[in-house]
Amino acid sequence: MHLEEIDWIDYLKRKVFKGKDVLAGVGDDSALVKIKKDKILLKSDLFIEDIHFKLKNISFETIGMRAVARVISDFAACGGVPKFIGISLGKPNYIKKTHLKKILEGILKFSKIYKFFLVGGDTSKAFKLFLDVWGVGIAEKYISRSNAKVDDYIFVTGRLGLNSYNMPFFPKVKEAQNLVKNFKINSMIDISDGFILDLYRILHESNKGAIVYKDKLPLTKGLNDIYRGEDYELIFTVSKDERRLDFLKQKFYLVGKIVSKKNGYKFKGGEKIFIKGYTHF
Amino acid sequence: MHLEEIDWIDYLKRKVFKGKDVLAGVGDDSALVKIKKDKILLKSDLFIEDIHFKLKNISFETIGMRAVARVISDFAACGGVPKFIGISLGKPNYIKKTHLKKILEGILKFSKIYKFFLVGGDTSKAFKLFLDVWGVGIAEKYISRSNAKVDDYIFVTGRLGLNSYNMPFFPKVKEAQNLVKNFKINSMIDISDGFILDLYRILHESNKGAIVYKDKLPLTKGLNDIYRGEDYELIFTVSKDERRLDFLKQKFYLVGKIVSKKNGYKFKGGEKIFIKGYTHF
Repeated sequence: MHLEEIDWIDYLKRKVFKGKDVLAGVGDDSALVKIKKDKILLKSDLFIEDIHFKLKNISFETIGMRAVARVISDFAACGGVPKFIGISLGKPNYIKKTHLKKILEGILKFSKIYKFFLVGGDTSKAFKLFLDVWGVGIAEKYISRSNAKVDDYIFVTGRLGLNSYNMPFFPKVKEAQNLVKNFKINSMIDISDGFILDLYRILHESNKGAIVYKDKLPLTKGLNDIYRGEDYELIFTVSKDERRLDFLKQKFYLVGKIVSKKNGYKFKGGEKIFIKGYTHF
Repeated sequence: MHLEEIDWIDYLKRKVFKGKDVLAGVGDDSALVKIKKDKILLKSDLFIEDIHFKLKNISFETIGMRAVARVISDFAACGGVPKFIGISLGKPNYIKKTHLKKILEGILKFSKIYKFFLVGGDTSKAFKLFLDVWGVGIAEKYISRSNAKVDDYIFVTGRLGLNSYNMPFFPKVKEAQNLVKNFKINSMIDISDGFILDLYRILHESNKGAIVYKDKLPLTKGLNDIYRGEDYELIFTVSKDERRLDFLKQKFYLVGKIVSKKNGYKFKGGEKIFIKGYTHF
């Protein structure tokens, strides 16, 4: 997802039907829908040559792994686990059968680790290689990005800036399941576009502000890490009533607090954060 | 779907997990999966600029309509109705917001006619405009393409060769629902790649042959109509035990009979049919 999409997604949101069958739709990591008595998560994610990856930098197996990992990570962020995954694949002439086989091997590795069923998809000639991975997930308890409360603690599950665009990553499904089942989690999101932008999404959807403690941020190379995408750690906010905060602080990084919207979105110390091309704080 | 894909789909088929949760997977029009007690259909379909359409020949609204119609038609062919649709959209620079709005309007028109919920999707920069439409459908009774029986009657729901690549088409959901609920339908498929190839898919998956009565084919321009894609009529086969055959013959076109595989796939009169690039009969 890129910044310019926010408009398109906002536009879609106004047009998307909501009703008894669509419990949460466009704008969250996954849509939550109801089929008879079951609630399921729905999600798709594009992975396009020369936009999301370059063939010279990444193996075909990793293309398969990263493409599905992105969707699994979104399910994790909603408190869900993947169940069925399908893949639409665009195949240019220079992609051969042996390459497709490697891509599929990457996908199948993840299907074993994350226990989802590959259920097919579509394929077509195309001008660049791309995968659209779509899937069905199950969430016993759905966590939205739009439910952060004032005085929530803001956590991150791991270090920022460790990402590499050409390596597989392993979505935090187990961590998220553990959090959702055992703690008072009010909101959650995965970091696909950088800590700053993804935290902003929680604030925007929840109509809240935040204070981030600069010295608590688990940076790797420097402050720039907060802008870098593809970390795929989770940001989650915990109710102020949570009693086992110490336990969470041992396992994860407490980096800030939710405040009311009028207090804005700032680092403690008062530096304003600027999100390129989108808005000021 | 193109001929060359048959290999890729066959390859996927061998790798796709089947089990108690995946009742029918790759190779049919839609996958049939089970979530707790519910059975649902899953499907995706690519619609790519300069592969499936050319911008100079088609309106943006029609792009939206055709992209979703292709998936709805697959659900219809399985005896299903669409329930939730999501769209991943690749947007090149020359596609503007006003174009996206028109595409969405086309989709929303169909969501009203066919009563599905649009639940979101993904969008990204891309080099050509493309839509990957994925969806969840419901089938009270699932009809496969792989269940044709010897002596089944082969029907087509409408004329062949009326297609136009740049106009909307209206998937035969009501017709299919009526057929599935009231008649002994053994197999069904929608004509996306031409009567000959799609009938061949039924035969291949069912391990059967067929006799087609040349003079019964509902042709529009000539025999070449049987090779032309995008008709989106349905081919279905009806059990020889069906008692209301006369009723079906009044409403649809009876064009042939299923025979055993060893009898091959031929026109009555003995002319062999050749499927370009794939195989002989």
